[in-house]
Amino acid sequence: MADDALFDFLHMEIVSHATKSDPSCLQDGDEAMSKLEQIGYSTGYRFIERLTKDLSRFKDELEVMKAICKDFWSAVFKKQVDNLRTNHQGVYVLQDNKFRFLASISNSRQYLELAPKYLVFTCGLLRGALASLGLTCIVTAEVTTMPACKFQVHLQRA
Amino acid sequence: MADDALFDFLHMEIVSHATKSDPSCLQDGDEAMSKLEQIGYSTGYRFIERLTKDLSRFKDELEVMKAICKDFWSAVFKKQVDNLRTNHQGVYVLQDNKFRFLASISNSRQYLELAPKYLVFTCGLLRGALASLGLTCIVTAEVTTMPACKFQVHLQRA
Repeated sequence: MADDALFDFLHMEIVSHATKSDPSCLQDGDEAMSKLEQIGYSTGYRFIERLTKDLSRFKDELEVMKAICKDFWSAVFKKQVDNLRTNHQGVYVLQDNKFRFLASISNSRQYLELAPKYLVFTCGLLRGALASLGLTCIVTAEVTTMPACKFQVHLQRA
Repeated sequence: MADDALFDFLHMEIVSHATKSDPSCLQDGDEAMSKLEQIGYSTGYRFIERLTKDLSRFKDELEVMKAICKDFWSAVFKKQVDNLRTNHQGVYVLQDNKFRFLASISNSRQYLELAPKYLVFTCGLLRGALASLGLTCIVTAEVTTMPACKFQVHLQRA
């Protein structure tokens, strides 16, 4: 319980440091977001390797996505993705009705504009995990009502 | 088991990003270290609050240090500090014979110079946790043989 808090607090600090304007840096908001996304990417890439090392190969793309929603999400966020949808053409939408990194932010509309910076690390995490499993993709996130959010995975086919 | 790896990988990525030379930044090595220390500080400050919220007040400085070695270290690193020494004048040395953030680095002498950057986040973590419990201090770290290391806590008395 308390141990999960460590990961939450560390995530909060990274977001805060990455997005705080640093006078010695020329980087703007986009670069800060890109950096957070990259940190997520490398973390996700390595973490899924460890997580799946004793599993047999996934037989198709849908199985990979299911493992992400179940095993990966549980290991990172201590809950599963609540809903997975697909158009069967390479787009998957993962919905989490109580996303952990948003759960401690007030859900008044006033704070809605702050939400994206708490999602970008996880977009990277997802993209890294999928890349490690052989799927190249673009991941975007969207919040309509806090603390629910949707991650849209757009697979890039060769 | 796998979940701990998440924290390890995230820590590795933060160290790697903070110390990677960024062409858009003027910051040098010292500033990168200071940033890592600050991220550790805020994380430690918040985490110990959560961890100790149901405990009764510590009766003295030594009790605080013991809780850090036992409860705090276990929650963060899944093991206790192996040895705690003090000169009874405000200096405490915490020795960890298998420090988690060094355990995955080769222990040949060649990599000894890389060790400090993997300790600075934890120096901040300790300083933050102690500050939250009312003790102002300076924390330094030292490695002689990997993966063992010592954290020296120098309490600042008013």
